[in-house]
Amino acid sequence: MILVLRPDATEPQIEHIIQRIGELGFTPHVSRGEQRTIVGVIGDERKPQAENFSAIPGVEQVLRVLKPFKLASREFRKEDSVVTVGKVRIGGGHLAMIAGPCAVESLEGLDTIAGHVKKAGANILRGGAFKPRTSPYAFQGMGEDGLKILRDVGDKHDMPVVTEVMDPRQVPLVEQWADMFQVGARNMQNFDLLKEIGQTRKPVLLKRGMSATVKDLLMSAEYVLAGGNQQVVLCERGVRSFEDSTRNMLDMSAVPNVKGQSHLPIIVDPSHATGRPDLIPSMAKASIAAGADGVHVEVHDCPEKAFSDGPQALLPPQFATLMDDIRKLAAVMNVDIDA
Amino acid sequence: MILVLRPDATEPQIEHIIQRIGELGFTPHVSRGEQRTIVGVIGDERKPQAENFSAIPGVEQVLRVLKPFKLASREFRKEDSVVTVGKVRIGGGHLAMIAGPCAVESLEGLDTIAGHVKKAGANILRGGAFKPRTSPYAFQGMGEDGLKILRDVGDKHDMPVVTEVMDPRQVPLVEQWADMFQVGARNMQNFDLLKEIGQTRKPVLLKRGMSATVKDLLMSAEYVLAGGNQQVVLCERGVRSFEDSTRNMLDMSAVPNVKGQSHLPIIVDPSHATGRPDLIPSMAKASIAAGADGVHVEVHDCPEKAFSDGPQALLPPQFATLMDDIRKLAAVMNVDIDA
Amino acid sequence: MILVLRPDATEPQIEHIIQRIGELGFTPHVSRGEQRTIVGVIGDERKPQAENFSAIPGVEQVLRVLKPFKLASREFRKEDSVVTVGKVRIGGGHLAMIAGPCAVESLEGLDTIAGHVKKAGANILRGGAFKPRTSPYAFQGMGEDGLKILRDVGDKHDMPVVTEVMDPRQVPLVEQWADMFQVGARNMQNFDLLKEIGQTRKPVLLKRGMSATVKDLLMSAEYVLAGGNQQVVLCERGVRSFEDSTRNMLDMSAVPNVKGQSHLPIIVDPSHATGRPDLIPSMAKASIAAGADGVHVEVHDCPEKAFSDGPQALLPPQFATLMDDIRKLAAVMNVDIDA
Amino acid sequence: MILVLRPDATEPQIEHIIQRIGELGFTPHVSRGEQRTIVGVIGDERKPQAENFSAIPGVEQVLRVLKPFKLASREFRKEDSVVTVGKVRIGGGHLAMIAGPCAVESLEGLDTIAGHVKKAGANILRGGAFKPRTSPYAFQGMGEDGLKILRDVGDKHDMPVVTEVMDPRQVPLVEQWADMFQVGARNMQNFDLLKEIGQTRKPVLLKRGMSATVKDLLMSAEYVLAGGNQQVVLCERGVRSFEDSTRNMLDMSAVPNVKGQSHLPIIVDPSHATGRPDLIPSMAKASIAAGADGVHVEVHDCPEKAFSDGPQALLPPQFATLMDDIRKLAAVMNVDIDA
Repeated sequence: MILVLRPDATEPQIEHIIQRIGELGFTPHVSRGEQRTIVGVIGDERKPQAENFSAIPGVEQVLRVLKPFKLASREFRKEDSVVTVGKVRIGGGHLAMIAGPCAVESLEGLDTIAGHVKKAGANILRGGAFKPRTSPYAFQGMGEDGLKILRDVGDKHDMPVVTEVMDPRQVPLVEQWADMFQVGARNMQNFDLLKEIGQTRKPVLLKRGMSATVKDLLMSAEYVLAGGNQQVVLCERGVRSFEDSTRNMLDMSAVPNVKGQSHLPIIVDPSHATGRPDLIPSMAKASIAAGADGVHVEVHDCPEKAFSDGPQALLPPQFATLMDDIRKLAAVMNVDIDA
Repeated sequence: MILVLRPDATEPQIEHIIQRIGELGFTPHVSRGEQRTIVGVIGDERKPQAENFSAIPGVEQVLRVLKPFKLASREFRKEDSVVTVGKVRIGGGHLAMIAGPCAVESLEGLDTIAGHVKKAGANILRGGAFKPRTSPYAFQGMGEDGLKILRDVGDKHDMPVVTEVMDPRQVPLVEQWADMFQVGARNMQNFDLLKEIGQTRKPVLLKRGMSATVKDLLMSAEYVLAGGNQQVVLCERGVRSFEDSTRNMLDMSAVPNVKGQSHLPIIVDPSHATGRPDLIPSMAKASIAAGADGVHVEVHDCPEKAFSDGPQALLPPQFATLMDDIRKLAAVMNVDIDA
Repeated sequence: MILVLRPDATEPQIEHIIQRIGELGFTPHVSRGEQRTIVGVIGDERKPQAENFSAIPGVEQVLRVLKPFKLASREFRKEDSVVTVGKVRIGGGHLAMIAGPCAVESLEGLDTIAGHVKKAGANILRGGAFKPRTSPYAFQGMGEDGLKILRDVGDKHDMPVVTEVMDPRQVPLVEQWADMFQVGARNMQNFDLLKEIGQTRKPVLLKRGMSATVKDLLMSAEYVLAGGNQQVVLCERGVRSFEDSTRNMLDMSAVPNVKGQSHLPIIVDPSHATGRPDLIPSMAKASIAAGADGVHVEVHDCPEKAFSDGPQALLPPQFATLMDDIRKLAAVMNVDIDA
Repeated sequence: MILVLRPDATEPQIEHIIQRIGELGFTPHVSRGEQRTIVGVIGDERKPQAENFSAIPGVEQVLRVLKPFKLASREFRKEDSVVTVGKVRIGGGHLAMIAGPCAVESLEGLDTIAGHVKKAGANILRGGAFKPRTSPYAFQGMGEDGLKILRDVGDKHDMPVVTEVMDPRQVPLVEQWADMFQVGARNMQNFDLLKEIGQTRKPVLLKRGMSATVKDLLMSAEYVLAGGNQQVVLCERGVRSFEDSTRNMLDMSAVPNVKGQSHLPIIVDPSHATGRPDLIPSMAKASIAAGADGVHVEVHDCPEKAFSDGPQALLPPQFATLMDDIRKLAAVMNVDIDA
């Protein structure tokens, strides 16, 4: 950590700063330049005591040298992590193809969609039982009944299943029925939920918050990892922006950006990122070319009758065409897709 | 709700759209223009069934006519709501002056700060016992012990107290010790938490999420109101932006924007919005001139030793000067401050 | 256009609105709903007279039905436009591979880089002679001398050349020496410059502004097209966002988003979008998979000695590897690259 | 400037970095920490040669210590600058009250509006003759005829006049007729225009770009100052954001933020910032309480017939009420308004 002092910092202020650095267990290293005095702070800047240096009188800026996450970093683990959901590997050259409806609506409905996506080549089935809805008057999900349907349909089609968990109190229930937790964008910084999931040993799909930086996303992953659960898959799903013709703005560069800093797999959700079926296939393909470890796509056989987010779902034949294209790109990119 | 059809929408598609509108309990009203056919949908567009019109083939855009919130709207209640915390009124011409440290750190520490802010004119004491921290390695708050200290110090200085609740499981505990819940920006769309608070009858300070629109904020308030709890105070605390010299961007226009659409009180938190003590006083004053129902300011007697967010706290004498200025502005604005 | 009236709109207001619509040459179509009265306005909503409907008392919202651009729209022209720069086709299945240094620095320097990028497979040479720099103290470009060098080097390597024009007064000079104008992000809404270029018949590479929506970009293209110049190629180069680890946020979905609405070609500039050489190759590849009509990549043989933007340039061998990868993706995507 | 090296930086890389720093005329200062080697670079980091340090192999981050602007900085000039437009002082405790229609539309029209705003207490008259319009089909302004009308009406009502200049070629013409140039948000980084204005000695109102940081705004002011023109007044007018209920997001904290770093006056334009007459008065008042040196408000006596931006204009009586409120706040804030 480096402290840049104010041009008018006084000698007593500088002495106080040096003393304070020592008190907190760090070593100061003063350098007096023409225009500014600069104080290097030697020691682990991730310690909580390092937080308030900028509040010491005379300090103008605090420049951090290290990344604030540890367990999620490439420095901690050089090789790509591979997360296994059921028999499906994600990361290290293996793509997740997660597909299904936004919400579980009925056994028959899910069964039909699962049949379509399995046949097209999806390897993980998704479907929401607990739904985070902006409006209290919107459909809130089938709850436990939805979880059981998801389990049954997944088993029937031999697909592992992923579903959202919104509340720390739901963790044991979701853990019982699903193969992978999903933490949605709105809960990326629901730290109590992350801690609870960190206590389990079940994989989690952690979606980026709507205004989270890549660093914030990795810090949220760090919460789960710090709890002892190493099975974290990240998901870019678009962020809020001024562009009003898409639901969110897909930050495609987050894929190589994460991969450079972290060993964790990262997939892309073009359905929520764009909110527009006409843009989803090209964004899914671009994700694979960008090096993503998979995609997450909403598919519904009758979007106009879906209970939520129908307008952003692909139809089964559109999804099948997309899977054909993705297989060609996967060959070029030298990655494979577990059945 | 108005459906704008695609220029190439076919007659069978138009017929299907009209039929579907009827099936869902609405009345269609077709108007064929030169360039587009437009279908008005008569009925309550807030019904869940109205969600997926844009997924019907042939529909290009869905334009909504009504606001999606009801109980929070000015149309539902014309007069300003007044929320009472202890003996302190907020709204309808009465300002909340909420002050205190970011986190409760010790009985003595909080007592000292409370003495300062009470004397300066603050009327509600704040202090966090459960802290949402980006890093799992940062101070996470004193928990229940912190709640008890907050209660004791508030009672000693005759100030009602507000403190953050992060997890639905903490609601009964916080309800027991505090006079007002605070829901932080990261939890504005933690819907299970909002539902739990909606079941209580204790006031709640609901902070705007970092990328929430004003409409999103009002929809989150609607969750609490729909549960039966009418004691909601909103808080503008800045949103994420590209500007990198302040912690967030204070959206000052949210104050009159909310007041035009809703009867709920709204205050401003310039501490989190700017993250810079040099900007806090002028932003607090601007808030009062903008018509806010109060401010929320972090105060610490030794920011460099604070356990969290020290760099954004005012010193007690700075806060006292600010209160003097606010009283002058309150006189011009014709509003008062309960003791 | 559709006018949604306020719930409290009076009869005299409604009559005034109807009269005003007629005066401006449109036909009103009134529909009285349960909660709101709605007035359809039949006629060309792009007429300037349509601008101020929202200022008429009693009007709450104005909802636009049509896109505000004409000549740039898919409805105006169904097939993809193909723009030809020298012998190089852009659009309609033909990719532009634009490469070169940020700025022209010397004849020898540019010659060396041009040799590298030509050999690797680039088909258009770029280099700035007029540089828009945030600081008045930074290198501002070689001006006319730079244009001549660019022309000479382009001719020697048989590559057409593109260079930035910043000022309407520079248009004749740049027209004389270059094969394609570039309008930078900061000038996307420099309307006098766009009008001046609209009067020429030379191709233009129009970059998206840092906070421009896709619609804004197409409106700026409309300025050039309205002047009679049909040779417009759009360029996505990232927009401003809160993410602080990349220079801008690459909005990859702008590629299919533009292509759905417009017949104009669109390429991607991953150099300015990310500002990070470690992210450029994967973003260039993703662009091709997303359906872009090419990429624009900065290449320098000694970035640490570049006069501007060195840190975002690829080295020649990195560019050659990228071109190999792009050729494989182009084969899968069924597009070709003119030599 | 401080270079943070990569953890895997080799000794030859470090030697090369040190050598390169020397070659460019700076002095290196190496500090080897536990986790990173850090190299301080002593010398003026604003020199163009300092630009590409981050492109030297082995360098991970470049941290800048100094602000990139000089002439605009508080360090360069401690006291507030006062800019004089006609007889009206702006800055140093004197408020500009700039009012008028968006565009000059006719002599009679402007005369009427000028009479109203003068009587209410405005001290500078605004009106556009050259209009930057998103659409090429919208009203583009009256040009030179508009300038003459503006001059005549200003003289009649004894008010100095400000008007927008969009093109470097218009500078002599606008200089002839107006008392103050306005550079609009879209031209904040039109560097050729800034240079041309820098060569005059006429005051300029420089508006913040839609995605410009405060630092960017000050860098654009630096262009004018570096040309020798010291008469710069800055203007906050809102920035682009995800909030869709206002035209832009007013960044009120830019006012004290600029004033802390720069001696230049800054005013606020709540008309463009919000685009909503219902929000303009409270934002104008908040601006004064925030310490702004004035406001810029659009006023039109018949917004529904305005040629541009009618929907964001106040009516004359609304403006008169606002001026009454502003005078009360000015008294509290201890600032005055020249007649």
